[in-house]
Order: sequence, then structure tokens, then C-alpha cells
Amino acid sequence: MLRFAQFGAGRIGAIHAANLAARSDAQLRYVVDVNAAAATALAARHGAKVVSVETALGDSQVDAVIIASSTDTHATLAIAAARAGKAIFCEKPIDLSLKRVDACLAAVRQAGVPMLVGFNRRFDPSFRALHARIARGEIGRVEQVIITSRDPGLPPIAYLKVSGGQFRDMTIHDFDMARWLLGEEPVELFAYGSCLVDPAVAKVGDTDSAMIVLKTASGRLCHINNSRRASYGYDQRLEVHGSKGRLIAGNRTDTTVELANDASVSSDKPLLFFLERYAEAYRLELAAFVEAVIKRQPMPVGGEDGRQAIVLAEAAVKSLRTGRPVKLAPPRR
Amino acid sequence: MLRFAQFGAGRIGAIHAANLAARSDAQLRYVVDVNAAAATALAARHGAKVVSVETALGDSQVDAVIIASSTDTHATLAIAAARAGKAIFCEKPIDLSLKRVDACLAAVRQAGVPMLVGFNRRFDPSFRALHARIARGEIGRVEQVIITSRDPGLPPIAYLKVSGGQFRDMTIHDFDMARWLLGEEPVELFAYGSCLVDPAVAKVGDTDSAMIVLKTASGRLCHINNSRRASYGYDQRLEVHGSKGRLIAGNRTDTTVELANDASVSSDKPLLFFLERYAEAYRLELAAFVEAVIKRQPMPVGGEDGRQAIVLAEAAVKSLRTGRPVKLAPPRR
Amino acid sequence: MLRFAQFGAGRIGAIHAANLAARSDAQLRYVVDVNAAAATALAARHGAKVVSVETALGDSQVDAVIIASSTDTHATLAIAAARAGKAIFCEKPIDLSLKRVDACLAAVRQAGVPMLVGFNRRFDPSFRALHARIARGEIGRVEQVIITSRDPGLPPIAYLKVSGGQFRDMTIHDFDMARWLLGEEPVELFAYGSCLVDPAVAKVGDTDSAMIVLKTASGRLCHINNSRRASYGYDQRLEVHGSKGRLIAGNRTDTTVELANDASVSSDKPLLFFLERYAEAYRLELAAFVEAVIKRQPMPVGGEDGRQAIVLAEAAVKSLRTGRPVKLAPPRR
Amino acid sequence: MLRFAQFGAGRIGAIHAANLAARSDAQLRYVVDVNAAAATALAARHGAKVVSVETALGDSQVDAVIIASSTDTHATLAIAAARAGKAIFCEKPIDLSLKRVDACLAAVRQAGVPMLVGFNRRFDPSFRALHARIARGEIGRVEQVIITSRDPGLPPIAYLKVSGGQFRDMTIHDFDMARWLLGEEPVELFAYGSCLVDPAVAKVGDTDSAMIVLKTASGRLCHINNSRRASYGYDQRLEVHGSKGRLIAGNRTDTTVELANDASVSSDKPLLFFLERYAEAYRLELAAFVEAVIKRQPMPVGGEDGRQAIVLAEAAVKSLRTGRPVKLAPPRR
Repeated sequence: MLRFAQFGAGRIGAIHAANLAARSDAQLRYVVDVNAAAATALAARHGAKVVSVETALGDSQVDAVIIASSTDTHATLAIAAARAGKAIFCEKPIDLSLKRVDACLAAVRQAGVPMLVGFNRRFDPSFRALHARIARGEIGRVEQVIITSRDPGLPPIAYLKVSGGQFRDMTIHDFDMARWLLGEEPVELFAYGSCLVDPAVAKVGDTDSAMIVLKTASGRLCHINNSRRASYGYDQRLEVHGSKGRLIAGNRTDTTVELANDASVSSDKPLLFFLERYAEAYRLELAAFVEAVIKRQPMPVGGEDGRQAIVLAEAAVKSLRTGRPVKLAPPRR
Repeated sequence: MLRFAQFGAGRIGAIHAANLAARSDAQLRYVVDVNAAAATALAARHGAKVVSVETALGDSQVDAVIIASSTDTHATLAIAAARAGKAIFCEKPIDLSLKRVDACLAAVRQAGVPMLVGFNRRFDPSFRALHARIARGEIGRVEQVIITSRDPGLPPIAYLKVSGGQFRDMTIHDFDMARWLLGEEPVELFAYGSCLVDPAVAKVGDTDSAMIVLKTASGRLCHINNSRRASYGYDQRLEVHGSKGRLIAGNRTDTTVELANDASVSSDKPLLFFLERYAEAYRLELAAFVEAVIKRQPMPVGGEDGRQAIVLAEAAVKSLRTGRPVKLAPPRR
Repeated sequence: MLRFAQFGAGRIGAIHAANLAARSDAQLRYVVDVNAAAATALAARHGAKVVSVETALGDSQVDAVIIASSTDTHATLAIAAARAGKAIFCEKPIDLSLKRVDACLAAVRQAGVPMLVGFNRRFDPSFRALHARIARGEIGRVEQVIITSRDPGLPPIAYLKVSGGQFRDMTIHDFDMARWLLGEEPVELFAYGSCLVDPAVAKVGDTDSAMIVLKTASGRLCHINNSRRASYGYDQRLEVHGSKGRLIAGNRTDTTVELANDASVSSDKPLLFFLERYAEAYRLELAAFVEAVIKRQPMPVGGEDGRQAIVLAEAAVKSLRTGRPVKLAPPRR
Repeated sequence: MLRFAQFGAGRIGAIHAANLAARSDAQLRYVVDVNAAAATALAARHGAKVVSVETALGDSQVDAVIIASSTDTHATLAIAAARAGKAIFCEKPIDLSLKRVDACLAAVRQAGVPMLVGFNRRFDPSFRALHARIARGEIGRVEQVIITSRDPGLPPIAYLKVSGGQFRDMTIHDFDMARWLLGEEPVELFAYGSCLVDPAVAKVGDTDSAMIVLKTASGRLCHINNSRRASYGYDQRLEVHGSKGRLIAGNRTDTTVELANDASVSSDKPLLFFLERYAEAYRLELAAFVEAVIKRQPMPVGGEDGRQAIVLAEAAVKSLRTGRPVKLAPPRR
């Protein structure tokens, strides 16, 4: 039985807590949140206690933490949890500053605790199956990857201001997908970004539409397209071309109902947003963490993966600013 | 908080118990099963007690029962539960004998307790959406219904011997779908049945392949096709033609992954069987029962629906035996 | 170079004439039609002459005839063409009366001329591929066939009056499909027919909606569903279940364009009607006729096929009238 | 009746000649080809004469020419045809050298003759419908375009050597699609190219895999992905995202047959290559040319479109060589 303290009782925190509650090998003991009401409600729902960070980390019976608080607290909490010897499940990004990421990863390494970074898409059943089928050689050698990732609607401008920008906030997931699917590290990228959805986005110095291309050392290529608004729902698709074929993973829908009438043949829009689309991914992600901790196995997606996605996001920001391609340093060993 | 006793700790029982456990407005108090080991395991998993039928029904704090035991015990347990004043969730069929069904329904009526009969397919998200869209008038007046219902593989012959035959055991779900979708009661049906999958089925006097047609008073038509074996999985589809269009509800798959190679473009087979395909339907079915009991609302699918599906199955058996169409009495009021 | 005389310059006649014109091994020499204007226009378009039946059949240089005139003239013209020693391409049905069909087939047999009956659907690329894949064993032994055949809209009542009724006029194609796909002759059928589209159809003693089931000696089953009106276009689908899998052939569309918006994901309706859907089938049908004549090979669909579809239609009419299943005599040898 | 001389009796020439032959308002009078056998065969098939360039252009009864000879002859023939006052249907590219293109377009402009450049994809029924639906406002303002264009297999290395390279030979079609769909001229592009299919391609200084991104003045973005080898056939898809929705045009298949078995649900691969996929596009392209000449209407795709696609290809070559984005001059007025 793995005992958890969870930091953050917001939207994502509620998902992780419910997924914990449904497991027989894990237990949510503590909830910590600056929003006392949210913490109390979530703790009550799952029979946990609301405590301070110190109490949670000071309890030697706590084996693991889930860090689902606001981004600017991730690194500090992860460092504290590492020093307390807890296994760490940390929502992405670790931090918006690479320096702080590195400090965090150093603390984790020094403590020797396991850490999973929350790139939930790696656990989506369709994406995971696609990845596994590449690994089984079904399409031969990977040559090109196309990642479509479009949110249903623009978040509030207030959120955008503190988000770190489209590449760090949104594309970061796609950068992780790119690395995961290319099977080689990108060595260079080039990014275009535009403000097409709402001029208010440009006013806060951000973009809402983007196209990025990446290249690996052997010449494998990847394209990412992003938008902050897709009127038809959350558009999340992967397409991988290899020497022997092509694998595509598409969107999911609520139902399979199809209507044919004198206008057209129509079916459901994609599921609305990440809570719906990635519900199963969140469940499987937590399962992977719990199982890796219990069985003392390597984490399927670790701190260096979290760092490298940030490195790619930084490079994309630089490419956008300079109007030039940016070379990428290889990940640290 | 609705407190439950559950009869039956087998495959379906385990599903209902888990769905109960995930609800905050319901609680599984007792598990009853002749198989003590199964009862104990299921009770332990959900913090319930293993007791006798008498204890379970004798506890005045028990509000409702789930009857998921073997078919031949359904009616007896339902009658006892009705007399004890419990709300009843009864797996289909109520009984293989119409006489015993009627005795059961009389007891339920006399006791004035609510009863839901477990036609889980009515709660499948796609089927439910299709039905709701018919009700909203999206295809005008219903004219023809086509029901495809094919199991992935033949059950053991030992099971078939006590199953009541293909029409009572398998097609019964489709007869309920037919009534639900036609929007009018069938007044006549004609059935063909064959043994094409395995000659052993014929030896026990059963069929493994069937095609049935039904007609309503106003001339609406319905077709059902059944097989006990579909090498590609569990094939569960509805197609409804109306004056203004056509609605189809198709199969679901594990993933959306599609492979294109030099042979073909291929995607996942349908989900294997009812546990996978109707997982969500079972959850929503129990939710509908709990909510109807709590809010004292009519059951979405009640005892007379259970009875009428059996009436249609009996008629199909008679049609098969006589080689002629069989007239159907209207449902009782 | 095969020289043709064509009887009938209507809608179907124009298709056959254009398909002839596009071939380098065939030539349209004569057009015959009681509608002189239609005959003249069609002949002019393809460099043919308008002549009488006698002239056309009396020209010893004419090798073959296309009979695409009104149904009541098919048998007479086919008999005359047979006596004149011409190869015969005859639109379906040969006649609405089985007696006249038999007289016609006797004349053809006696003359020893080749005859193709125009069941164009056998030449649809998708249907033909489906049939070939059954023959290659891709789904093992055929067990069940489901034929969906729905016209986009009701023909004029005046046409219905002389059409011979829905089963002889419309379902006849599906009866041929059933025989072709079942791989065994049906030994019994049962038919339901209704008037759901327009009460005017009932007033002329016809049906506009139908469901039929057929059985072969070994127990293979087939279902046909028909409607005279499908608001979404011409619905022409085949579904064949075998011991090792399922083959489906669906509708075709004008384009592959798909629109996703805040309402749904929508694509094109099926092609409107037979001229569009079966354009390629008509072309391949004529090609098959020309090649079989030139190479002196057996016709892919002959007079006995034409006769047997009428036998099934007659049986369906009888089943509808009597409300009982009807046994079918085996095809003649 | 428009009378044509055609230069080039190869694969594409044969298509155009057959499409001409099927029209009642056009006639192929002359065929010119350095390959006398090919010219004779094609001329014989369509009742034309084999003549010299001079004779063909010197005949005042010739209204129009089709230039479908080898690329290096396009500009010279177009200039000669322009001077002879003929309407010009010229296969793409006009020339591999922009200087020669400009000389050609100057001659055409001076002569005042109409000219269509053979970007056949604009006439593909699905692509054309997609474009028309954008124009009708179905997806609001265009924001992003994604063009997938992958050939089934590598052409001979000997061909690649004289092809002008992947961008000028293959991507040129996609550059035209980009301009057509973006609704604004690109002002900058960036290109990655790799040799992943066959090292022999690199040896002749070419690429076989490419990803390109383009940007317009208002920030609209476009991505093109190319490969010289797609094991599953010819992959030709468009995807356009707008403020109100998304339009996709996919691949076509030979049949609609779908097989479900214990391995998967599989359907046809895309049509093999351009002769199959764009057969209808070639027919409609010629129709558009003939109608525009007869009705004296503007050409749907003219010389400046041909030039601008080459400008984009040149820029992509430069981007690949320099590793930097390349600014694009606006099209000439």
C-alpha cells in the first residue's frame, strides 16, 4: 500500500486523487493546497486530511507525492519531497526556468528518489499503442512524424500572461511526443508563430497559432501544428511515417452515432478537451507511477524528459524571436 | 445513501458491485452467493458482509437488491425481495418461463416496489444517444430498424443446454432493442434459425445463427441478425431508417490507431465482448436505477419490458418450430 | 469489331451507347426506338443510323443487340434477335411473366446465341471485389448475407402501376445479389411489405418498404431491406458474414471532403442514384459482354439467372399475399 | 469545335489525347513527338496526323495546343505556339529556369493568347470541392493549411538527375496548392530536406523526404510534407483550418470493401499513383481549358501561377542550401 500526499486540489489534482482512490494498492493520506476550501473538499471526498507541506513531507509513512499545484511551486515542492525521500509524481512543466529545472533534477538525483513527469499523453491508449507498434517494427524505420495538437478554445488572457507562452505551456506536450516518436533526439528546430485567433494574445506578447519543424541527426523530420482554438473540439492526432508504412492515431468521440440525411453524413465531434480525451491516460499514468515505485522499476517518463521538452520549448521561443532555426544541445547523460 | 444487498458474485455481479462502490450515494452492504468463496472475495473487495438471503432481506436498512445470480433463481429472489419491500434491480431474463415471470411481476406489483430489468444495452452511450436523437425527431418517423448482434464465440455446450436456447438467451436483448427503437409494439414476427457454427449446437436442439423479421401494426419493420460466433469480436450495431434520414450506431474499439501498409489500411477490431463493450452501459444502468429509486421516478426499463422481451422470444421459438409467422399479443396494461 | 444494334434510346440506352462508343472493339450501327426524336438524337451522337427492328436484325453484319427498351418489349425483341442469330445483351427483367421468360429463354437456347441479363450490380467494382474475396476464401464459408437497397425517392405513381410491383421492379436486383453471394440457391423465403412512404403507393396495390429473409438448404440466411425513399441518397450496401470474418461493401461519394465544425464532423452523402453509383458497373458490364462474345466464353450472368431472380420475386409476392413463407423450386438445369 | 495540336505522346500525353477524344467540342488534329512510334500510335488511336512542330503550328485551323512533351521543351514550344496565336495548355513546370519561364510568359502576354498551366490537382473533385467550400465561408477565415503529398515509390535515379530536384519536380504541385488554399501569398518559407529512402538520391545531390513551412503576411501558416516513397500508395491529402472549422480532403480507393477478421478491420489502400488518383482531375482540367477558350473566359490557373510555384521551389532550394528561412517576393502584377 503506497501512501500519498498530494499538493494541489484543483482540476488536475481532483483527477489524480480520484484515480488514486480507485486503486487498491495506494491511498491518499494528505491534501495540501493554499486554497483551503478546495483542499478540504477534495480531502473529504477521499478520506484524506488537510495538512501543511511540512506535515505531509514530515510523515515518514508517506511514500510518494503528487505535485499538481501551480507551475511556479513545482520545483520547490519537488526539491523538498526529494529531500524527504519521497517518490515524486510531478505535473509538467517542472518549471518555466531551465535553471530551476536543473536545480530540481539535481536534488532528485542526489536524493535518489524516483520521479515521473506528467506527460500524460504518453499513456493515452491510442498513442501508447501507436508507439508500441512502431517499437514492434510495424512501419520499419521512422522517417517523419506529424503532430496535430489544437485546443478547443483560448484560455483567459490572465492565464496566458503567466503561462510562459504557447510553446512552454501548450507545445511542450508536443515536444515530448516528438522526442518519443522520432526515436532520435532533434538536433535543430524552426518555429513560426502567429496571432490569428485573438489580437489580445499578441498584446500580451504571445502567439495562438504555430507551426514547428524539427530535424534529427540522421535526417528524420517532425512537424507540429498548434492552435489555441478549434471550433470542433480538442484535436489531438499523431501520424508517423516509416519505411514500411504509416501509423495514425486519431481523435475519440462520445458515441459512434452517425446521421445520414439530405444534408450530409455526420458524426460526433472529437471529445471536448483534455479532461475528457485524456481521462484514461491520467488513470494509466498514475498506475504506471505506482507500479514503478512498488516494483522499483525505472519511470516511463522521467526528469530528463521533462527537462528536454523545456529545452525544445526554449529553442522554439528563440527561433520565433530570431526568425532563424536553432540548434539543440543533446540531452545530458 | 441507498444500501444494497446483492445476490450473485459472478462475472456480472462483480461489475455491479464495483459500479456501486464507485458511487457516493450507494453502498453495498451484503453479498449472497451459493459459491461461498466468490461471495467472500467480492464482499471483501468492497467492505460488505457475506450473509444468507434471509438475513439480507430481513435487514430493514437494506433499501434495494441487485439480482445477478443464475437465471433460475431470479424470479424467486425478486418475489422475496418484493415482499420484503426492497427496490429491485434484476438481471435479464426474469425467468425462462412466462408463467413464473407473471407470478414475479404480480408480486412486484402487489408490493408496489420499483423494479428495473437489466437490459443494459439501453444505457450504452451510443445506443442511448441514437434513441434520444430519434425522439428529438432527427430522422422523422421511424420506418425500419436493423439490429446486428453477434457474439465473438460460442459458449460451452453445457451452458447452451440450460440457456433456454438462442432466442431466449441471446436474442432477448435484441427483442428489447426492437421494441425500444420501433416506437410501436411488434404485432407479428417470423424467425429463421440455423446451426452453422458448430454441429454440436444442433445436437442440443439449439441454433447458433438466426435472422428474424418483425412488423408493427402500422407496418414498421425490423430485422435482427444473430450469430454465436464473429471472428472479429463482438458485433453490436443498430441502424434506424426514418422518413427524414438514417441513424447508425456502430462498434467501439480499444484505440483509434490505423495502419497503412502495402497490404491495406487497417484498424482495431471491435471490443471483444459485453464486459468491454458495455462497461459504460452497466455503470449508467446502475446509476439510472439508483437515481430513480432516490428520486422516486419511474424505472427507465421495467418488469413489463422484461416480460415482453420474453413474449417475443417465445414467439420466435414457436415460429422456428412451426415454420410460420407468429402473431403477438399486445403488452398488458 | 463487334457491330451492335440497340433497342431503346432512353436513359439506360444512352449509357450503353456511350459505353459502346468508348470501346475500340465495338461499334454502334443502329438505334431503334418508338420515340423517333430520342432515337435520332442518340444515333447522331454516336454516328449510328435510326432503323426499324427488321432492318436492324436483318443486317447480317450486326453481331449483337442491346435491348434497353421498355420491359414489355424485352422478350419479343430477345426472341427475334435470337432467331436472327445475334448475341443478346438484355436489360432486366426479361419479362414480368415467367411464362414469357421461359418462352424467351427457350428461343435463345434453341438459337444457341449468347445472352447476358443486365444485373449491373454484379459489375460494381466494390461488389465484384467483395464477391471475388469470398471466392478466394477470405471469410471462410458464407453464413449470412445482408443486403441494403434503398432508392433515393419514390418514382411516379404512373410508373409504379406498370412496374410489376416493388419486388419485381426493385428487389429483383437484390434477389440476384442474394443468389450470387449466398453461394447456394435459396429454398424458401418470407417477405414483409408495407406502405410507409406514401399512401398513394398502397392505392395502386404496391408496397414502398420491405424486409425479406431467405434460407438455403444448408441453412445459410439472407436478409434484404428495401425502401423507395432514402432522404440521404441511394443506399446500396452488402454485408457478408462467413466462418472466418465479415466483408462489407459500402456506398461511394462524390468527394472525400470532411468538415468538422461546432456541430459535427460531416461528409458527403452517398451518390444520388443508379446512374451515378453504377456508372462504372454499366461500363464493366458491357465490357464483359463484348469480351465474352468475342472470346466465345460463357456469359457471367445469363438467362437462367434472369429467370431465377423473377422466380424469387414471384415467391416474395406470394409470401406477401399469403402471409406465409414460400418454398422455392431449384433452378432448372 | 476546338482543333488541337498536341506535343508529346508519352504517358501524360496519352491521357490528354483520350480526354480530348471524349469531348464533342474538341478535336485532336495533330500529334508531334520526337518518338515517332509513340506519336504514330497515339495519332492512330484518335484519328490524328503525325506532323512536325512547324506544320502543327502553321495550320491556321489549329486553335489550341497541348504541351505535354519533356520539361526542357515546354518553354520553347509555348513561345512558338504563342507567336502562332494558339491557346496554350502547358504541363507543369513551364521550365526549371525562372529566366526562361519569364521569357515564355512575356511571349504569351505579348501574343495575348490564353494559357493554362497544368496544375491538375486544382481540378481533383475533392480538392476543388474543398476549395469551393472555403470560398463559401464554411470554415471562416483560413488560418493553417497542411498538405500531405507522398509518392508511392522512388523514380529511377536517371530521372532524378534531370528532374531539377525534389522541390522543383514534386513539391511544385504542393506549392501551388499552398498558394491556392492559403488565400494569401506566402512571404517566407523554411525547408528541411533529407535522404531517408535511398542513399543513391543523396549521391545525385537530391532529397527524398522533406518538410516545409510557409508564412503569409497576415500570419497564416502552411506545412507541406513530402516523401518519394509511401509503401501504401499515393498519399494526397489536404487539411485546412479556419476560424470556424476544419476541412479535410482524403485519399480515394478502388473499392469500399472492408474486411473484418481476427486480425483487424481493413480496407483498400489509396489509389496507386497520379494516373489513377487524378484521372478525373485531368479530365476536368482539360474541360476547364476548352470551355475557357471557347467562352473567352480567364484561365482558372495561368502562367503567373506556374511562375510563382517555381519561385517557391527556388526559395525552398535556397532554404535547404543555406539552412535559413527565405523571403519571397510578391507575385508580379
